[in-house]
Amino acid sequence: HTRPKLADWPHRRFDLLQGRWVLVSPHRTRRPWLGQTEKPPAEERPAYDPHCYLCPGNRRASGAVNPPYTGTFVFPNDFAALLPDAPGLEESADPLLRAMPVRGECRVLCFSPRHDLTLAEMTVEEIARVVDMWSDQITDLGTRYRWVQVFENKGAIMGCSNPHPHGQVWAGDFLPREAAAEDEQQGRWYETHGRPLLLDYARRELDSGERVVAVNAHWVGVVPWWAVWPFEVLLMPLRPVQRLPDLTDEERRALAEILQDLLIRYDNLFEVSFPYSMGWHGAPTGPDQDRPQPHWQLHAHFYPPLLRSATVKKFMVGYEMLAEPQRDLTPEQAAERLRSLPTVYYKRRQQ
Amino acid sequence: HTRPKLADWPHRRFDLLQGRWVLVSPHRTRRPWLGQTEKPPAEERPAYDPHCYLCPGNRRASGAVNPPYTGTFVFPNDFAALLPDAPGLEESADPLLRAMPVRGECRVLCFSPRHDLTLAEMTVEEIARVVDMWSDQITDLGTRYRWVQVFENKGAIMGCSNPHPHGQVWAGDFLPREAAAEDEQQGRWYETHGRPLLLDYARRELDSGERVVAVNAHWVGVVPWWAVWPFEVLLMPLRPVQRLPDLTDEERRALAEILQDLLIRYDNLFEVSFPYSMGWHGAPTGPDQDRPQPHWQLHAHFYPPLLRSATVKKFMVGYEMLAEPQRDLTPEQAAERLRSLPTVYYKRRQQ
Ligand SMILES: O=P(O)(O)O[C@H]1O[C@H](CO)[C@@H](O)[C@H](O)[C@H]1O
Ligand SMILES: O=P(O)(O)O[C@H]1O[C@H](CO)[C@@H](O)[C@H](O)[C@H]1O
Repeated sequence: HTRPKLADWPHRRFDLLQGRWVLVSPHRTRRPWLGQTEKPPAEERPAYDPHCYLCPGNRRASGAVNPPYTGTFVFPNDFAALLPDAPGLEESADPLLRAMPVRGECRVLCFSPRHDLTLAEMTVEEIARVVDMWSDQITDLGTRYRWVQVFENKGAIMGCSNPHPHGQVWAGDFLPREAAAEDEQQGRWYETHGRPLLLDYARRELDSGERVVAVNAHWVGVVPWWAVWPFEVLLMPLRPVQRLPDLTDEERRALAEILQDLLIRYDNLFEVSFPYSMGWHGAPTGPDQDRPQPHWQLHAHFYPPLLRSATVKKFMVGYEMLAEPQRDLTPEQAAERLRSLPTVYYKRRQQ
Repeated sequence: HTRPKLADWPHRRFDLLQGRWVLVSPHRTRRPWLGQTEKPPAEERPAYDPHCYLCPGNRRASGAVNPPYTGTFVFPNDFAALLPDAPGLEESADPLLRAMPVRGECRVLCFSPRHDLTLAEMTVEEIARVVDMWSDQITDLGTRYRWVQVFENKGAIMGCSNPHPHGQVWAGDFLPREAAAEDEQQGRWYETHGRPLLLDYARRELDSGERVVAVNAHWVGVVPWWAVWPFEVLLMPLRPVQRLPDLTDEERRALAEILQDLLIRYDNLFEVSFPYSMGWHGAPTGPDQDRPQPHWQLHAHFYPPLLRSATVKKFMVGYEMLAEPQRDLTPEQAAERLRSLPTVYYKRRQQ
């Protein structure tokens, strides 16, 4: 069978979850890299840093002192992008200058008292406590806000200003851009097929196996068909689940396990603490909490920027900003590389 | 009048050109920066660099030797993301895995033989030759391709691997994501109002002046109402113009002038060669060349990443990737800062 393969030639793939195209240029991996390189993260950190505003017992910008916490720890973001009280605002009547006031809350989520850890280096038990914290945030803020965005920016290259393991939650009374797109696309699929898009997609990926990175009894992680970032991963449950708080104990445990598996693979890929932004998407909450939304399927996105090594990232610039995201290696190649890595952490192997 | 102002509180603004929302958090500029800083670009460069593959007379990766060019110079990109000949490709019939083959061409556009210049440091005459080159590329590639994306990635922080002043053109037989969104939004406005969206918008901005950065008889540059990047600029002609090749000689000259004005302001802002991605959008070409598209208005986008200084950029990560772009300072504040800068290049002032 000598028919030219799509995977060998420039083509576009359709992101069914977001409703947009991605340009794939598989032949372009041969391009030499002469551009900017990143500083790899400093590998040695103390378990406690007296200058870290996230470590137990230390003072934060607001003047508050962190408790001597031993597990996870949540506090309000001192520099919140969203505020709970917004005064009644003038709105612009000009159709060219449309605006709307918004209300919300932002919090910081510490994963561990240990300054020197990352999720990838924590035990399954410890990761399970982080899953519980994420879930509790969605339950709590979901009573008041339509969209509760739990996320983690990891690594200085991702704008993270403190290596202490932590994430954030930004909750708001509006459906943000990406959430609205996913709501529409999932709704469209459900109308036609009567099943959640991401459940059909997860089964399709399990059947082929080509893009699967990690799998267990309750979860599958794939480099999606439409991945934009070189080693992007989409993590999905294998039964219909709308939000993190809906997971059973067994599913939470399995989630902690597959998170550990995936994050160790990430760190092992270039033998560096792998930077990324990750976050959870689930059915809208607040006023939508009790509305049936059977089209919505819980999932996590992992968007890691590294392309070739610990120091060479993919730049989403120029053509990407002005026209359309473009990727070099195919999602299948990326999945194959992640899949073939050991799941023993590289630092422990070297000892 | 003590009614709380929108500009002082978190709100969203609607990007009428792309059809999407942006989160604005004006109170957040007080946030201290503890995160990654960028290396400012090396300021001293030779007029000719024997190791630069863009300098006149030097050899490129392909083995070809650059002519001893004295103005602008165009050559095919040796590592093109799009290729003119794509074989007849298998297409996936699976509705979950949609793909389409694409054809296109990529070229490199040298702005000057001088290795040590940037557009901001070139004369109006020299910039006018670059405008001509951009325009010629659209005329040429527009005969064969639906979308001809002219752009420049400037600065190592924008993935630019060579400081020699140059841009690129990627032409393809499809309407990329951003182009399709602008086509739809402009079409919608035209249907309702019978005038091009960006012409109405340019007049609105001229009336208020609040977001205007630079203006002359034929052009206006504004930090748009819906700007995502801290010092983003949208450059528009003041009469209906669909594509770069449609400009009169006088309009081209005025374009070179306003480009010089804007780019000097950019460099003067943090007294550093200001990194950005910029590029041109105009009515689709190729099969659409002769179809009336009165809704389309020519414009250029400038997307610069710096936020606070020569070394602190805005990170579009986490919430931005997973939910919605968020900005700290308002477009009005950014425009005010750019507008109040001198238009004499900072290096010449210091002498
Ligand atoms: O073509 P270059 O300069 O090698 O590459 C640069 O610009 C391209 C187009 O904007 C991007 O796709 C690349 O990620 C970037 O590194
Ligand atoms: O909240 P932080 O960590 O100070 O800030 C970081 O994450 C935010 C949310 O993703 C981004 O808006 C900022 O650009 C980034 O620097």
